Amino acid sequence: MMKVRGLAALTPKAALTPYEFERRELGAHDVALDIAYAGICHSDIHQVREEWGPAIFPMVPGHEIAGTVSAIGSAVTKFKVGDPIGVGVFIDSCRKCASCLEGLQQYCEEGMTGTYNTMERDGKTVALGGYSNLFVINEDYAVHIPSNLSLDGVAPLLCAGITLYSPLRKWNTGAGSKVAVMGLGGLGHMGVKFAVAMGAEVTVLSHSPSKKADALAMGAKHFIDTSVPGALKPLYKSFDLVLNTVSAFLDINEYLDLLKLDATLVVIGLPGKPYEVNAGSLLNGRRRIAGSMIGGIPEMQEMLDFCGKHSIVSDIEVIDASYADKAYERTIASDVKYRFVIDASTF
Amino acid sequence: MMKVRGLAALTPKAALTPYEFERRELGAHDVALDIAYAGICHSDIHQVREEWGPAIFPMVPGHEIAGTVSAIGSAVTKFKVGDPIGVGVFIDSCRKCASCLEGLQQYCEEGMTGTYNTMERDGKTVALGGYSNLFVINEDYAVHIPSNLSLDGVAPLLCAGITLYSPLRKWNTGAGSKVAVMGLGGLGHMGVKFAVAMGAEVTVLSHSPSKKADALAMGAKHFIDTSVPGALKPLYKSFDLVLNTVSAFLDINEYLDLLKLDATLVVIGLPGKPYEVNAGSLLNGRRRIAGSMIGGIPEMQEMLDFCGKHSIVSDIEVIDASYADKAYERTIASDVKYRFVIDASTF
Repeated sequence: MMKVRGLAALTPKAALTPYEFERRELGAHDVALDIAYAGICHSDIHQVREEWGPAIFPMVPGHEIAGTVSAIGSAVTKFKVGDPIGVGVFIDSCRKCASCLEGLQQYCEEGMTGTYNTMERDGKTVALGGYSNLFVINEDYAVHIPSNLSLDGVAPLLCAGITLYSPLRKWNTGAGSKVAVMGLGGLGHMGVKFAVAMGAEVTVLSHSPSKKADALAMGAKHFIDTSVPGALKPLYKSFDLVLNTVSAFLDINEYLDLLKLDATLVVIGLPGKPYEVNAGSLLNGRRRIAGSMIGGIPEMQEMLDFCGKHSIVSDIEVIDASYADKAYERTIASDVKYRFVIDASTF
Repeated sequence: MMKVRGLAALTPKAALTPYEFERRELGAHDVALDIAYAGICHSDIHQVREEWGPAIFPMVPGHEIAGTVSAIGSAVTKFKVGDPIGVGVFIDSCRKCASCLEGLQQYCEEGMTGTYNTMERDGKTVALGGYSNLFVINEDYAVHIPSNLSLDGVAPLLCAGITLYSPLRKWNTGAGSKVAVMGLGGLGHMGVKFAVAMGAEVTVLSHSPSKKADALAMGAKHFIDTSVPGALKPLYKSFDLVLNTVSAFLDINEYLDLLKLDATLVVIGLPGKPYEVNAGSLLNGRRRIAGSMIGGIPEMQEMLDFCGKHSIVSDIEVIDASYADKAYERTIASDVKYRFVIDASTF
């Protein structure tokens, strides 16, 4: 067993505290990685606080993991020692259902195995996440990081990044597409960067006018301050795709009205309340509302290669482990530009 | 002007009474038709009763019109006297927007011109509908009825029929598709007939077990009595397409869970309350909920040709004009198999 240092919530809603634990010895297809950086995702906070239902404690959160391969199992072919490597929201799946065979492990019919707060597929090991200095994973569930990208800015790509990249690709974003991104936070700012790099004309819809300069600097063509009454009206039937990264409650029908004929609004987050969708908003223009959840391993690799080619990383604030609780508070308050990343050398 | 006999509601919520009015003389591109049958659509009732907002009275409802061409304007090329002819939910549109140019007049950017309860595009003529013995329409907004079909069973195809045919086509229904139809009424029974004829395996989801025999006779493979608790559970992730023809309130999330990966639930009716859609129901399996509204002129023609080829008509109860109010009550009570059609010789 390999000794690991990290951060854990020992009980529901508890503060994060230094925590030592062990990871398995390498199996034939496992790789070990020295974690360099671990991103803080809002879903970490939801799970520590049991806002998504009963959770498993002690919990080591973290599913935005970037590091360097430190050892490989006897049968590993995908990685070699020294490779930059990423791990995201899941570490395993059934490997045999239609979704897995298609490389859509996030929709595994037996349920993907999360990176933490779940039992591994052996049914007895609790998965412990990325707020730690060392990780062990089956090579099939890790991805290569292009060597021109810095690992700190890469970490959030493994969840926030793929969450936005996947729907942009699925709904065929490209030159000429008109894309709106609702909310400019950890998720939204990745959506802007990707959509711009794909050639789309991007509009940011945000109730924080202070973010306008950032949005335009990231390549957005337009910024709409949604706190101004009537601000959405001129955008009626303007977009091929609207990405909703906002988890706060809002009138989704106002945003459905922004879709062109046959266009789609994709929801990405999990707000606590259901969306109240008027049938008329859908009938008018044969509009659609869809969900999208992270991305599979092949698409994660495709995204990282795309990031390498276009020099895209997340905008981050690097913190020490001791700052994590404070970072949680600031994440909840949307007071971060645009993602906190923990320096794993401080665990 | 041409004298017409029909039925009208003289004021909001009033009973239907015999009503005489005039239609315009034929313009160069107009055709006149002797109406043979006019279907009763639930939306007629909504509009007579102002359940969709303020309406125009006297109102002659009716937008499921089947008849025979009795005269043609000087420039008409599409029809000749004696042709069986159908008119549906709209009689005009802008003809120049992207939707119109694509033959999707129902999504006209200036708004389609309804068959009744609206002003015509001249801005001064009130459109009066199909509960009448004679109609005048621009040839571009009427369709040919195959000669092997009886006009009484055809009338409901012009609204109920196209409303189901269009989403089945749009979402690529064919051999191997698994389609669920929610509700077996005027709309739903057309969905079953079309999906079966397209080669799909069809399941009817209905809370009326008495309709099982009809559903199977129409070609459905399965009938699920949704009034039985847990009846939907075994159907989890089973369908490529779910068509919701139910206007009563229901938990849409239970039905979203029936969709396979990347599959779509299409809503067709306009229930009074918004759907409460859980984001999780959409994220899980990248599911979509979409709206669909009737169909354009080219697709209406395609549907009628398909009906001619497969000998598909609506199941109907033919009534006299004097029975229309009673038929309204029975339509509201879902006490009709499956559509009332008024014999226009009784106006």
